[in-house]
Amino acid sequence: MSQEAVNGVPSRGKVLTMDNMNPNLKRIEYAVRGVLVQRAMQIEKELNEGVKKPFKEVIKANIGDAHAMGQKPITFFRQVLALCMYPELLDDNMFPEDAKKRARRILKACGGQSIGAYSASQGIECIRQDVAHYIERRDGGIPSNPDNIYLSTGASDAIVTMLKLLVCGEGRDRTGVMISIPQYPLYSATLAELGAVQISYYLDEENCWSLDVKELRRALNAARQHCNPRVLCIINPGNPTGQVQSRQCIEDVIRFAKEEHLFLMADEVYQDNVYAEGCKFHSFKKVLFEMGPEYSSTMEMASFHSTSKCYMGECGFRGGYMEVINLDPEVKFQLTKLVSVRLCPPVPGQALLDLVVNPPQPSEPSYATFMKERTAVLAALAEKARLTEETFNTVPGITCNPVQGAMYTFPRITLPQKAIDKAKEEGQVPDMYYCIRLLEEEGICLVPGSGFGQRKGTFHFRMTILPPTEKLKVVLQKIRDFHLRFTQEFS
Amino acid sequence: MSQEAVNGVPSRGKVLTMDNMNPNLKRIEYAVRGVLVQRAMQIEKELNEGVKKPFKEVIKANIGDAHAMGQKPITFFRQVLALCMYPELLDDNMFPEDAKKRARRILKACGGQSIGAYSASQGIECIRQDVAHYIERRDGGIPSNPDNIYLSTGASDAIVTMLKLLVCGEGRDRTGVMISIPQYPLYSATLAELGAVQISYYLDEENCWSLDVKELRRALNAARQHCNPRVLCIINPGNPTGQVQSRQCIEDVIRFAKEEHLFLMADEVYQDNVYAEGCKFHSFKKVLFEMGPEYSSTMEMASFHSTSKCYMGECGFRGGYMEVINLDPEVKFQLTKLVSVRLCPPVPGQALLDLVVNPPQPSEPSYATFMKERTAVLAALAEKARLTEETFNTVPGITCNPVQGAMYTFPRITLPQKAIDKAKEEGQVPDMYYCIRLLEEEGICLVPGSGFGQRKGTFHFRMTILPPTEKLKVVLQKIRDFHLRFTQEFS
Repeated sequence: MSQEAVNGVPSRGKVLTMDNMNPNLKRIEYAVRGVLVQRAMQIEKELNEGVKKPFKEVIKANIGDAHAMGQKPITFFRQVLALCMYPELLDDNMFPEDAKKRARRILKACGGQSIGAYSASQGIECIRQDVAHYIERRDGGIPSNPDNIYLSTGASDAIVTMLKLLVCGEGRDRTGVMISIPQYPLYSATLAELGAVQISYYLDEENCWSLDVKELRRALNAARQHCNPRVLCIINPGNPTGQVQSRQCIEDVIRFAKEEHLFLMADEVYQDNVYAEGCKFHSFKKVLFEMGPEYSSTMEMASFHSTSKCYMGECGFRGGYMEVINLDPEVKFQLTKLVSVRLCPPVPGQALLDLVVNPPQPSEPSYATFMKERTAVLAALAEKARLTEETFNTVPGITCNPVQGAMYTFPRITLPQKAIDKAKEEGQVPDMYYCIRLLEEEGICLVPGSGFGQRKGTFHFRMTILPPTEKLKVVLQKIRDFHLRFTQEFS
Repeated sequence: MSQEAVNGVPSRGKVLTMDNMNPNLKRIEYAVRGVLVQRAMQIEKELNEGVKKPFKEVIKANIGDAHAMGQKPITFFRQVLALCMYPELLDDNMFPEDAKKRARRILKACGGQSIGAYSASQGIECIRQDVAHYIERRDGGIPSNPDNIYLSTGASDAIVTMLKLLVCGEGRDRTGVMISIPQYPLYSATLAELGAVQISYYLDEENCWSLDVKELRRALNAARQHCNPRVLCIINPGNPTGQVQSRQCIEDVIRFAKEEHLFLMADEVYQDNVYAEGCKFHSFKKVLFEMGPEYSSTMEMASFHSTSKCYMGECGFRGGYMEVINLDPEVKFQLTKLVSVRLCPPVPGQALLDLVVNPPQPSEPSYATFMKERTAVLAALAEKARLTEETFNTVPGITCNPVQGAMYTFPRITLPQKAIDKAKEEGQVPDMYYCIRLLEEEGICLVPGSGFGQRKGTFHFRMTILPPTEKLKVVLQKIRDFHLRFTQEFS
């Protein structure tokens, strides 16, 4: 830790070093935005500077970022937001009346009628009411209480907040949190940061990434040896695996959570992203309430939603909410106190969320355009989900489950032993080596399966299906060509 | 923890209770949005429902929320934001060319030219460049590197992130963080959450809340007995105390931090809010660099800024940034990884920040209006700062330091012993009792000094000077009347 002497006086070196920084943070991994993405950005710069590459552009299929992939915002949402930003536009004739009505209502709920005022820490009250109504409509009339809604800075923020509340104990009493493998790495990163114990349960790749309660039980029993399992996290529709859980499966999970006295966290940010025939989104809350008062009156649950996914894909706004069910009132008071320290979620994101949960109605002038835009996005995603699965399954050495929902495919790749050895030589995990080669040779940025977790000895990558259809075809073709070449090279 | 039996089967009670939630969170206090504010909101509802009160409206002077107090947004900022939200407006003639130019530049830097795309986790690159240029102009040309700029979700987010990195060790090795008393309770709340040790140093009320290095040293030496002091936090201009530090004081503090091997955190979110004659804002970075390479090439520092304060007061957008200086490169890599888990700061807040650091220039069409609006806000604040100090100092039992800067006054109130006894009877700290009575009787919501910390046996409150001048006069008169009545009642 010693540094060069300045003017002959030995320096004590840095105050903050790798040796004395928060050790939990060092354990964090977040592959979705890891070294590969940094290299992709560097290559983009090199291309701009005229450096010759075997490709003309980098296609970043590593992240579910719809607008970056060319998806257009929903017109109505942006009209209302523009009106909220600059209310002078309310006098302009270029905006439809329903957009103006929504903007006036949002502004009226803001301090000083400005979207620049802080809101209540839990979120603007009338927006929480709209969220509650949205949940009630979605869940066939099962009641939702606005007091149980917490608006947030994207779903990530709410998920971290909830996990934070749940973590306590030391050693064998430390809180254990069950997460799926493959998982979305926000979960593993947050557990590392909080020093909680990650309990991995594996999704069944042979059965379309379905969740088997036997596997949950296996994971739980193993974990009981060394921690205190208290939380079960579910992502449905799945990220990175794209499965949509059946109603039966959700019932089984809820029953398991009740038996084992677990707090349920249901990450449902892809609730509109269901493509496969015969698949349907069932909210955990709806199923819970349909299972009767024995469940609905006792089981503690938080469910999460976001403005970043579905048909709107407004990631930049960091809008989201969680609904908490059956939370102990004193704990709820602590939760409210906790979120108040950060003052409030971004108000533009709250306003956007309000539009998502309260979109144009059939009687309103913007309805037709809204429905057209929404339907077009979801139809295109369904088509791309199908195309992706079909194309990958024509490639020897790639096996791909149906993309039933969400925005990603997580195909399995068979790597020749020589490639695995070569990766080891280079000090890399094999699927990272594969993805680096793909990036350098074809300009396509994916995330290696190891960033999400996978069964030992298997290899995958995550790719978003968001590129426009024509570009997606190019991507799939390039991956196909690369995969054949790569396999050839090492066999 | 046991609950009523359901169907004869004894229930195990809640999974998450006060007994097994994260114990650090229970220790958090955040008075700025505490019970008093919740009561104020309740009273507002009661007024709306027609309940008779001795006042017609609740005036919330508890928080620095400019727009909620009627301050109008800066026209140029909102025009550019509306254009970014709904780029179809770029074809409209109602917007000035410089606003369109800014919007085009921001959109060009966004993925898919949409403000709805994720940005880089550290923030949009061209905005970080603009921030760096702003800092260079502010600091008389001292270089700023965009790679050292991290955009954030308000300043709070960046402050928490930096503290998170700095916390490690157990028992007597646990990281100690020096914060002023009175302080802004984000600091104490974050230290409680992270389980870090709070080291309190007292500001000198008799000397206009100035900071004395002797007091820093006293606090540090006392703390060395039970923790590992590593960080010194400064708020300048001060919150809640409104002092503006002299250049000499800043030099002394920097010298102290170097001698004692402390990481400096400079919270400078009120950097435009300086009112008192003879006072000037000096950034810690500028002073650090002017002290020569012995300081500027070794001392580690982070400084923080926000879109929520100054003349713009855009709290709802949650925009902000931090600049890190001399951070160990490996630690910086860890910082970048850490922020990537939360994807990115809200992009509308980033866009707004870009306008704040790169406002209209003299050659541009919006310059005159921008300067007029900016100057009017700051001039009104200066007038209100003066008015507040003068009025309070005419009240027997209230002593008020000059409001040299920021947005608050923190006057000292003398409470009769009988009032103190009465408060104890009611189970309240005396200044909380005072503030509750004021709220119930006059409809004015302040924050008791105990929420910020104060020397034992002294009592204060924090009040923002943000209400419009005429309303502020009413507030001051009401507090005066209340204080005299309250003192009378208990003498």
